[in-house]
Amino acid sequence: MEENLAVVLYRKREEIPKCDIVLENRPIKEPDKDEVLIRIHSVGICGSDVHFWLDGRIGDFILEDCMVSGHEASGTVVKCGTGVSHLQTGDRVSIEPGYPLINDEYSRSGRYNLSPMYFCSCPPHHGTLQKYYTHRASYCYKLPDNITLEEGALIEPLSVGIHACRRAEIDLGHKVLVCGAGPIGLVSMIVAKAMGAAAVVITDLHEDRLEKAKEMGADCTIKITKGESAQETAKRIREALGAMADRTIECTGAESAIQSGIYATKSGGCMALVGFGPDLVSVPLVNAATREVDIKGVHRYKNTWPAAISMLATGRIDVKSLVTQRFPMSKSQEAFECSCDSKGIKVIIQCHLKDQ
Amino acid sequence: MEENLAVVLYRKREEIPKCDIVLENRPIKEPDKDEVLIRIHSVGICGSDVHFWLDGRIGDFILEDCMVSGHEASGTVVKCGTGVSHLQTGDRVSIEPGYPLINDEYSRSGRYNLSPMYFCSCPPHHGTLQKYYTHRASYCYKLPDNITLEEGALIEPLSVGIHACRRAEIDLGHKVLVCGAGPIGLVSMIVAKAMGAAAVVITDLHEDRLEKAKEMGADCTIKITKGESAQETAKRIREALGAMADRTIECTGAESAIQSGIYATKSGGCMALVGFGPDLVSVPLVNAATREVDIKGVHRYKNTWPAAISMLATGRIDVKSLVTQRFPMSKSQEAFECSCDSKGIKVIIQCHLKDQ
Amino acid sequence: MEENLAVVLYRKREEIPKCDIVLENRPIKEPDKDEVLIRIHSVGICGSDVHFWLDGRIGDFILEDCMVSGHEASGTVVKCGTGVSHLQTGDRVSIEPGYPLINDEYSRSGRYNLSPMYFCSCPPHHGTLQKYYTHRASYCYKLPDNITLEEGALIEPLSVGIHACRRAEIDLGHKVLVCGAGPIGLVSMIVAKAMGAAAVVITDLHEDRLEKAKEMGADCTIKITKGESAQETAKRIREALGAMADRTIECTGAESAIQSGIYATKSGGCMALVGFGPDLVSVPLVNAATREVDIKGVHRYKNTWPAAISMLATGRIDVKSLVTQRFPMSKSQEAFECSCDSKGIKVIIQCHLKDQ
Amino acid sequence: MEENLAVVLYRKREEIPKCDIVLENRPIKEPDKDEVLIRIHSVGICGSDVHFWLDGRIGDFILEDCMVSGHEASGTVVKCGTGVSHLQTGDRVSIEPGYPLINDEYSRSGRYNLSPMYFCSCPPHHGTLQKYYTHRASYCYKLPDNITLEEGALIEPLSVGIHACRRAEIDLGHKVLVCGAGPIGLVSMIVAKAMGAAAVVITDLHEDRLEKAKEMGADCTIKITKGESAQETAKRIREALGAMADRTIECTGAESAIQSGIYATKSGGCMALVGFGPDLVSVPLVNAATREVDIKGVHRYKNTWPAAISMLATGRIDVKSLVTQRFPMSKSQEAFECSCDSKGIKVIIQCHLKDQ
Repeated sequence: MEENLAVVLYRKREEIPKCDIVLENRPIKEPDKDEVLIRIHSVGICGSDVHFWLDGRIGDFILEDCMVSGHEASGTVVKCGTGVSHLQTGDRVSIEPGYPLINDEYSRSGRYNLSPMYFCSCPPHHGTLQKYYTHRASYCYKLPDNITLEEGALIEPLSVGIHACRRAEIDLGHKVLVCGAGPIGLVSMIVAKAMGAAAVVITDLHEDRLEKAKEMGADCTIKITKGESAQETAKRIREALGAMADRTIECTGAESAIQSGIYATKSGGCMALVGFGPDLVSVPLVNAATREVDIKGVHRYKNTWPAAISMLATGRIDVKSLVTQRFPMSKSQEAFECSCDSKGIKVIIQCHLKDQ
Repeated sequence: MEENLAVVLYRKREEIPKCDIVLENRPIKEPDKDEVLIRIHSVGICGSDVHFWLDGRIGDFILEDCMVSGHEASGTVVKCGTGVSHLQTGDRVSIEPGYPLINDEYSRSGRYNLSPMYFCSCPPHHGTLQKYYTHRASYCYKLPDNITLEEGALIEPLSVGIHACRRAEIDLGHKVLVCGAGPIGLVSMIVAKAMGAAAVVITDLHEDRLEKAKEMGADCTIKITKGESAQETAKRIREALGAMADRTIECTGAESAIQSGIYATKSGGCMALVGFGPDLVSVPLVNAATREVDIKGVHRYKNTWPAAISMLATGRIDVKSLVTQRFPMSKSQEAFECSCDSKGIKVIIQCHLKDQ
Repeated sequence: MEENLAVVLYRKREEIPKCDIVLENRPIKEPDKDEVLIRIHSVGICGSDVHFWLDGRIGDFILEDCMVSGHEASGTVVKCGTGVSHLQTGDRVSIEPGYPLINDEYSRSGRYNLSPMYFCSCPPHHGTLQKYYTHRASYCYKLPDNITLEEGALIEPLSVGIHACRRAEIDLGHKVLVCGAGPIGLVSMIVAKAMGAAAVVITDLHEDRLEKAKEMGADCTIKITKGESAQETAKRIREALGAMADRTIECTGAESAIQSGIYATKSGGCMALVGFGPDLVSVPLVNAATREVDIKGVHRYKNTWPAAISMLATGRIDVKSLVTQRFPMSKSQEAFECSCDSKGIKVIIQCHLKDQ
Repeated sequence: MEENLAVVLYRKREEIPKCDIVLENRPIKEPDKDEVLIRIHSVGICGSDVHFWLDGRIGDFILEDCMVSGHEASGTVVKCGTGVSHLQTGDRVSIEPGYPLINDEYSRSGRYNLSPMYFCSCPPHHGTLQKYYTHRASYCYKLPDNITLEEGALIEPLSVGIHACRRAEIDLGHKVLVCGAGPIGLVSMIVAKAMGAAAVVITDLHEDRLEKAKEMGADCTIKITKGESAQETAKRIREALGAMADRTIECTGAESAIQSGIYATKSGGCMALVGFGPDLVSVPLVNAATREVDIKGVHRYKNTWPAAISMLATGRIDVKSLVTQRFPMSKSQEAFECSCDSKGIKVIIQCHLKDQ
């Protein structure tokens, strides 16, 4: 087996949060009984990967030393643990990067995303951005022939959109506001429409992101102006939708977006929070509560891969155009830099050039 | 105002259930304070209209003397009651034919379809198949310019599909079985896909109906063979879907379809019953119950018009191809006969030829 | 018929928010077709009554001139409108003070509390604190013989607790935190236990309120110390419950209580907001969202009277001990003053002394 | 360690379904890493245990050779596997007898009762009716000091009632019909009241069972007369409840009870099926469906132990009086015979006399 090149974030000095991006060979982990070893094909770069690179931490998760990056991944099974029966060598799989570490009340009651979890590229767990990666087999999903491995890597961000739209209880005919036209805003928009939304309005600070949103199906777009009051923004949203939003998917974490999201959501509606900002946020709570606008958090996802695969396989959801740039592993530094730019939506690192 | 021609079912002799279809002039009802008078444009013929014509009754609803037929209707407002503010003369509207007669626990808790109801062309209430018809204004919905009046009449059957799919709790990625490829089966299929179904398999006894279903988006079709066991049919369904059905929408009322529907539905799934057959049905209840396959009835609809209008207006649902035949009022007898034929899906009677 | 004495709040001068409490005779409103005239027996004083007295407004509802106070009421039917069939003269009734004014999407979908409403003693509508009051008959509920008229008046605050617990989705075995031991906190506690809560911890600033809560069934109580951090309070709550709260019912509106309520609620849980404080509240939204602690408002109630009556009639809920003071109408000023005191939980004004 | 006496059902000859009840010594299974060895204290006899004894099978589960009986059990931990951290030697535990064998979509989505399962005393798995039994530690729940081990054994049947009432969505103020006053009917009644039912009516063929139900809290009881029509029975139920039932918990499996249960349930209500009878049942499906009375199966339980323990610990649910007879292991034959008698509700076998 060839060498296992990996993209590793190194925190060189404790007092400097920004990490170095280093390519180095790592040992290949032999699969345990219930694991598979995967030859990684594509890995998408996520905002959280960039966060760990720039800040060395996300909330209480602190990168102390070094960590292999990446968690949006797909590849081909090259070795199966002795207890694995649903996969075999050669199967093309998409990887669900997180699974519960214990059998607690959350994992038993269908909310395993709230259990203590193993999660790729979240300290202390290493990520998938390496040539060979070993994962719990039951969280690797075989892809049908008509889904590419690049699409397979996109199932992870798509899953965030699915979980957000399920939490928001999108229903037929809904008018939906999506705040933020980055990758998560875009997949939320795509899923909202697939679940029956009649119209989606999407907001962003950047015109080029809104252009992309339009290409991908936004019914209307609104460019946010810094300094505008939350009520004024809400008014523009209502005018664009021709009504208040039945549901709002907030993907920015910005206080102003949260506030205008509440003002723009109709009584009895719901705002799902996908983006996270400062610890304490000033919220118009009386306005939300007297109108029974529910505020619901979205923590990653759960039980999304089977639905995502079905929808991609029958062509009812298309995520291909999310990808704006592709880089070989050797240009990972460039890939991370490109991810910070508003023009890049989803940047993909290709781990084996000859597999593409 | 011109004369008010109406299509009336007459039960000539008590002992003969089959009614005569008679065209006659009827008085025009002046709108009360909260009513509007509508110049009817299109009226679809429903299976229940045919039932009343042929049998003089449906269950406990008995046609004693005579009744204007029709309840799938649209038209143009020609006069508003003094208390009506959301509509004005000239507005094009779709009519929701039923509304609760009392303010009881059902109408207060959002299930007004279970209240005692006024319902067009359900004895003792007359129907919409007349040139001018007066209705409670708050159950008349203004159509936007990009929805035709013929589509407006189709919102009624579409609503049955919406209510069925909501009752069945169709979710993203579901594989759905629809039993019966008549109008209700077809709208259930359309709505299931709009709500996120990944694939729909539809069954029928008639090849021509299955052809129509394919044209309208069925992912696969199954021709039912009389005499086949319920388990054998279920096996064919599973093979076609590549899995057991997450949800089943039963639109035939046939005992064999109900049985095979249960066998074909996966554990934890749901079968919504839209079609009604004999009073007592032999059901594999242990099979359903130990696998927690819920059995849920579908009684007409509630709160469907706004969603339907949003979906038609944004082009996310298309019902136009449901219409297979159109007749002028003068040929109503032919229209009813055509409705009994498996080749006809939705037959429309046009009430004012010059409006078409 | 005797004279109709009423307790009226008068805003004497526009620039002074505090109103005068005036007893004066008011005309008796003849019941319309769908109304009943009620000889009022008991009226509870609510925090909002006190608010209008002291501030002349609640949010956007401004008392411009004068208003009869009171909305927690019961009495005896003395005259029925011609269209009323479910009530007759002599029936003892509890009054649901609010009902939707229009047949809109909210009233049709079972959320009539979100419709534009008629609501007693909410400007511009007069209240029930008068000897004779006329109300929409279908929102007057006949009391069985084993429910007293005083209990009948308490169904209104009880309803807030029912709606709060339903919104919070209290389930069997839940450990529940109730913030605030005023009347609404106490009814929320009672209802939470009736819906299956295994244990309720209740908090307040005042020891005497906590004593009352203990008498009425609180499993444990926590005295809030001003200046304590939200995290410290949450820690004390967790220790008292032996776990994080499955559900939190926030009845104070205080920012500190909202914050500690979130910190004290377990992942996947829910905080229902019943109390309202300042327009903008600083909320630990990342903490709530990453743990999927839902935040849900509670606006009054809907569909609660039948359940409340069933529970009181079978003795499964007891609200009698909520009443701490009773006053005749002539001492209404005293009654309002008493309501501001933390020792008073529920103050009742008896409108006809000889009926008591 | 002493010898491990066990109560074993032996199928002596293949052609005779009835098994022999044999006491014999069995090897003690050493606990694996994630298991605990339990000194069994009490084992309740369930209808299914009796079924296997008398018929050698239940549905597709066939007792081929021999099987240790019992699955309603509690005991004391005597040895922990190396990976067990939440339990230690000496802990008193209640055993959840079933757990999912694979990490499939059901176990991940909170419906592990629908996964392929390990289940005590369901072939090919042996049961708990032995002096020492080894079980997956995470399905053994530590009992607080104020819950006895006998109560600990009763959590299993109580769990069926909890799952049934959750499936039926019992809500505050509901009027509930329970069909059948055996152990499962009684626990369903207890749980329904704990979840907020205002009144429960319970039916049975046997007067002594109805007496027991009254003692345990039934608001009214109805003795079923063989030969009475389903509609007549339903009428008697409606009269007893003073209304149609909001929810029905069917615990008999009898066709007549299922039919009358549907007729007695109000529109928009639900019938949960706990009892299982013949494979095909004649059901008034049009009546159920047009009134949207949902029919939902109940397969064992899931996620019930924590709630049950909380409710028993705070005294809000009392199951002690379910136990009508107790036997030592040596009299297991008598215990099984006693269980067939309508006078016995719950028969307990005490596995270590000196522990009682």
